[in-house]
Amino acid sequence: MDFAGRIQRIRDGLDAHQIDAMLVSYLKNIFYLSGFGGSTAEILITGEHALFLTDSRYYERFKEEVCEGYRLVPFYQESLGRKLKELAVEHGFTRLGIEADHLPFAQVEELKENSGADIVPLSGVVEKLRLVKDDDEIAALERAIRLKEEVFTELIGLIRGDVTEADLAAEFEYRLRKKGAQMASFPPIVAFGKNSSKPHATFTSQTLVPTMPLTFDLGAELDGYCSDLTRTVFYGGVAQGWQEIYAIVREAKDAAAGSARAGMRCADVDRIARDIICRSGYDSYKVDGEERKYFGHGLGHGVGVEVHEAPRLNNRSEETLKAGSVVTIEPGIYLPDQGGIRIEDMYVVRDGCLENLNSLSTDILVVE
Amino acid sequence: MDFAGRIQRIRDGLDAHQIDAMLVSYLKNIFYLSGFGGSTAEILITGEHALFLTDSRYYERFKEEVCEGYRLVPFYQESLGRKLKELAVEHGFTRLGIEADHLPFAQVEELKENSGADIVPLSGVVEKLRLVKDDDEIAALERAIRLKEEVFTELIGLIRGDVTEADLAAEFEYRLRKKGAQMASFPPIVAFGKNSSKPHATFTSQTLVPTMPLTFDLGAELDGYCSDLTRTVFYGGVAQGWQEIYAIVREAKDAAAGSARAGMRCADVDRIARDIICRSGYDSYKVDGEERKYFGHGLGHGVGVEVHEAPRLNNRSEETLKAGSVVTIEPGIYLPDQGGIRIEDMYVVRDGCLENLNSLSTDILVVE
Repeated sequence: MDFAGRIQRIRDGLDAHQIDAMLVSYLKNIFYLSGFGGSTAEILITGEHALFLTDSRYYERFKEEVCEGYRLVPFYQESLGRKLKELAVEHGFTRLGIEADHLPFAQVEELKENSGADIVPLSGVVEKLRLVKDDDEIAALERAIRLKEEVFTELIGLIRGDVTEADLAAEFEYRLRKKGAQMASFPPIVAFGKNSSKPHATFTSQTLVPTMPLTFDLGAELDGYCSDLTRTVFYGGVAQGWQEIYAIVREAKDAAAGSARAGMRCADVDRIARDIICRSGYDSYKVDGEERKYFGHGLGHGVGVEVHEAPRLNNRSEETLKAGSVVTIEPGIYLPDQGGIRIEDMYVVRDGCLENLNSLSTDILVVE
Repeated sequence: MDFAGRIQRIRDGLDAHQIDAMLVSYLKNIFYLSGFGGSTAEILITGEHALFLTDSRYYERFKEEVCEGYRLVPFYQESLGRKLKELAVEHGFTRLGIEADHLPFAQVEELKENSGADIVPLSGVVEKLRLVKDDDEIAALERAIRLKEEVFTELIGLIRGDVTEADLAAEFEYRLRKKGAQMASFPPIVAFGKNSSKPHATFTSQTLVPTMPLTFDLGAELDGYCSDLTRTVFYGGVAQGWQEIYAIVREAKDAAAGSARAGMRCADVDRIARDIICRSGYDSYKVDGEERKYFGHGLGHGVGVEVHEAPRLNNRSEETLKAGSVVTIEPGIYLPDQGGIRIEDMYVVRDGCLENLNSLSTDILVVE
């Protein structure tokens, strides 16, 4: 990965933000800028130096994982403000940018009190770089997708008898690990029948529900990059009505993915799918007098070193698709207390189109 | 779990904090106050009401998981400040406590700008309750420990041939899931030989290293409560010197655990173990002129709904042990580029002693 280029881009932005050093505290951003996968660190980038603050639990991982160009600064969790004050003397910075979307309020107050520097709250400094993936990153995302698809295909082969949601979730993670993934990129969603009416269901000891939706929303994290895929399949036939709902969701997904391209507003991509679902009779219903949507979540989101990152594809998004972003398209229809259908693929945004990174069919799959 | 009592204790504290509503945003605290295990929610507790803000992905889980007493308030991620302004009108609050250790700086600024309420940054409001466990919680922690010990014992049976660190990590999580755990409480540490010199190692495809330390630091999360256990074992004998190091670590652990009790300063408990290790010749060494400790991390930490929580047992801690806290004691000695030994159990703090919640022996285990 081009860590040196990433550090340089942070450095290039210092003047524009009117700072002379940037503190990066969010672990996913630290990974993006250094390759470090541990759980405790801070990065400080000045015009001339890149410092890596961590404690002795991670000295060995620092040597193994962190890219060239960083100097290790031993740091325990006493006071980040006082540590920065020392470093400010040594490195001569007075205006320090911090990650306002990640650093807790109390931590920022501590920095203001103890660092002696002017604290400049900034938003999305590293995330802005992460928004556009280079070829190495797209290749890493594709490897995470291939792995996940391979394991998903194996899971389909296990759909029989008295297999439970929890069994398949366990098999998914086990097979991922055995194939080299560090972990699932989020807790696996394996939701049978009624449980599939919850977009973010938790797996249970429930067994297969014949003819009703069986939703699998699964991701793998491989070498720090994530994948995210949803398929809804059936077992022993398809109950009345669900073929039609499946077809609507697929049409919505295909229409959105088929129209989107770099330069399009994310909210407009969302609307293409949402309009199809709403016009097909799945707009909203009432619970206790309150309106609820059949498709209540956004259409999709970016994927990279996090499984949910920018851009957001929903009807409130003010973002525009950029070439090189990688996004999911994942419309769904959920009938309360009955079940739900969601279909999701990952795409690279190109100038004239979206390029599907997945290879699995979205034809309705009925396991017999 | 006594959710009603917990909500009441938050309510009872409103006056002391000079607030008339408390916003709880940290997911582990939300779980503690409600039972909700999803990933997006806010809780607002006023003198009379308890409101639960989440979006439609979680309406069904709200019904299933959240304890009685909360009213569901549909909320999407547009502006929490403006939503709170509406709720302030309806519920008549003007001074709003927030979790300053968790809410990002930018989010607090947004609340100040849009909520119309006086924002009062508070620290540890819910954590203070979590510090002392009731009997139901200790029983939940014990269940998580039993499960983890059961799986650990199975893992020991798999130590043979060309088994890798990653194999055993995968087996650990798979077997946990099959026995009903939601997940590992942290990424499993399975570290053979040199890799065990890193207190927080990542498992690799490395195979067994005969006669050198094999460290397993494993945790299970069951029904929202965590466990944490470390054992260092050997395969095919014990290389010269490691019996002695093992004995020092065990002596340090037993001495600290044997002396600690409610009312003792956490830093003093840490010192008991640290003194034994340092006096035995494992104080510090130099790398590039910089001093490094053989036992570079703290002695232990609290465990509950998080695997790392208050109190912290280290030499900088200003906390005092409280009866009903559950803590780990986990000294270690790490020889750079060679290997390390760590032994860890979980204890309930009682008035006159620590009560060990683990049942596994700490005798040195050599698998043949």
